Amino acid sequence: MTIEEVKKHIRDVYDFPVKGIIFKDLTTAFKNADCMKFFEDQMYDLYKDKGITKVIGIESRGFIMAPILGNKLGLGFIPIRKKGKLPAETYEVSYGKEYGVDVIQLHKDALNENDVVLIHDDLLATGGTMKAACELVRKFNVKKIYVNFLVELDFLEGAKVFDKDVDVKSLIHF
Amino acid sequence: MTIEEVKKHIRDVYDFPVKGIIFKDLTTAFKNADCMKFFEDQMYDLYKDKGITKVIGIESRGFIMAPILGNKLGLGFIPIRKKGKLPAETYEVSYGKEYGVDVIQLHKDALNENDVVLIHDDLLATGGTMKAACELVRKFNVKKIYVNFLVELDFLEGAKVFDKDVDVKSLIHF
Repeated sequence: MTIEEVKKHIRDVYDFPVKGIIFKDLTTAFKNADCMKFFEDQMYDLYKDKGITKVIGIESRGFIMAPILGNKLGLGFIPIRKKGKLPAETYEVSYGKEYGVDVIQLHKDALNENDVVLIHDDLLATGGTMKAACELVRKFNVKKIYVNFLVELDFLEGAKVFDKDVDVKSLIHF
Repeated sequence: MTIEEVKKHIRDVYDFPVKGIIFKDLTTAFKNADCMKFFEDQMYDLYKDKGITKVIGIESRGFIMAPILGNKLGLGFIPIRKKGKLPAETYEVSYGKEYGVDVIQLHKDALNENDVVLIHDDLLATGGTMKAACELVRKFNVKKIYVNFLVELDFLEGAKVFDKDVDVKSLIHF
């Protein structure tokens, strides 16, 4: 499968979640086995030789591909979740959203200062959640942060919000 | 790895989410690559010869292992999500929770009447969410429903809430 073929499996949904937005719906790609295999292979090729030691996915849609990669790299999987969902001791970061503030958390025993961390989410729009996730991971003084998305909406310029030392890559650009 | 060894990686968290509950925390198992491999291999062995045509995970923690199995079976992945998260046309089911009512949804184009469906979630407690998920999948008149959990809390007798024609299996029992 090629990037152009995968793009055909990503559905445009008009006026979701609010009027005027064209939502890139990945469920139509996830239910296609060849698209899933494409995502897996591309992510593995990108990160197999980077010395990654921990793979993180952001709740909820980041939970879909991150465990597949973590498993393939022989590393397991670590979730970043919304406030109140992780049961043990956590670090947390608050960040502004369109309407109000969100808080994300990570277990204190999830990472350490020797880690090279990959943080994955499905889609890069304005980058607010992933920027907060990077801040959260920095609390552990890790060696390096890689950031991965399946899809990036280039016109929103979300990639510009990250610090220069963060390696940001997306498989598919619109 | 054996079931007994995996059990040692599942953490007991006291008084979460409320006083008096001992929460089985699977994040300590997911971050261990051998536990993840155990989950993957056991799920694959259970379902590889069942003629499964669609693999569903329930938001959020069901998203972690279901895509790994779906990918391994060459089937892709389909999410059941909380109300308002899926962008296209959905069917939905409401069900009672401890405090109020929850609604889960599934895209109308996700399944059809020829499907043999596996629905996965991480943990079976009282079974309310998964029972609602089965009701949701039944709206498509599918041929057969398999239900899978990583962990089942036997003393809560959640397995008893399912109809007799649903095949319910858990990898680990407490």
